Amino acid sequence: MTKPADPAEDLARAAAIARGTLRLLADLGLCGIQEMTLANNRRADIAAIGPGGEIWMVEIKSGVPDFRSDSKWPEYIPFCDRFWFAVDHDFPQDLIPEEAGLIVADAFGAAVIREAPAEKLSPARRKAVILRLARLAAMRLSAAADAGWTASEAALTSSGL
Amino acid sequence: MTKPADPAEDLARAAAIARGTLRLLADLGLCGIQEMTLANNRRADIAAIGPGGEIWMVEIKSGVPDFRSDSKWPEYIPFCDRFWFAVDHDFPQDLIPEEAGLIVADAFGAAVIREAPAEKLSPARRKAVILRLARLAAMRLSAAADAGWTASEAALTSSGL
Repeated sequence: MTKPADPAEDLARAAAIARGTLRLLADLGLCGIQEMTLANNRRADIAAIGPGGEIWMVEIKSGVPDFRSDSKWPEYIPFCDRFWFAVDHDFPQDLIPEEAGLIVADAFGAAVIREAPAEKLSPARRKAVILRLARLAAMRLSAAADAGWTASEAALTSSGL
Repeated sequence: MTKPADPAEDLARAAAIARGTLRLLADLGLCGIQEMTLANNRRADIAAIGPGGEIWMVEIKSGVPDFRSDSKWPEYIPFCDRFWFAVDHDFPQDLIPEEAGLIVADAFGAAVIREAPAEKLSPARRKAVILRLARLAAMRLSAAADAGWTASEAALTSSGL
């Protein structure tokens, strides 16, 4: 596989993977948002919520260097029921650790290649993560609709679990 | 007060009240979304969620005719901790029933004129309302960001409480 040397290309690749992944999640019944900060200050690339309140998180990797430079991914696992990596079709799939599921995506769609192991959240943490997601998504919607918006996502900081 | 005869003017007035009200809610720490359908098929003009998961709903009235033609507002009350009417400064405030709080808004901001009585949701219903809000807001964000989006809000229909 080719390793992109160009940061702009890397970003475009990550955005394409994110779009395809969000479409897949929607097909599976999960509504996802991008870039959600967790109580441990990690920022999930995608956090998604299913019809029964199940929480999936997806870490997007634009390529091997991006994957190799990340040692923080295990810190998402305590905040979701299933944790996934999403990569494009050039990515060497055997690099993906067993603790994670694998999604392969392009800009138009995605597929589950390997199921993520399930580790159920505690009720208290599930409640906290859903609340955080609800407030963040609602605030972003309001900000997008209101040109003169002054509230900031920083106001959302809470004593989350 | 003058009663607008023009439906377009009525809509513009409602949109202005919604914007000012959402800004007020954000100042109070609540993140709101517009037009959320509830499990009883009523559609709340604004549903907002506070840092501890408290749920407020706001019914926007563009004028007296709009208020008088609505007999359905009591059906929002079982789905929130506090229920409010939001009106503009021309609206005769003594029409507002005691079961509701009163917000007066324009396009730039709003003020609480009378507190809404609090009636706490049951934990199960709170969970269902927060889940609905989270999924709806996340789905709208994704749809707004993705030009080729095909998923529909109808997919969110759930066996909510």
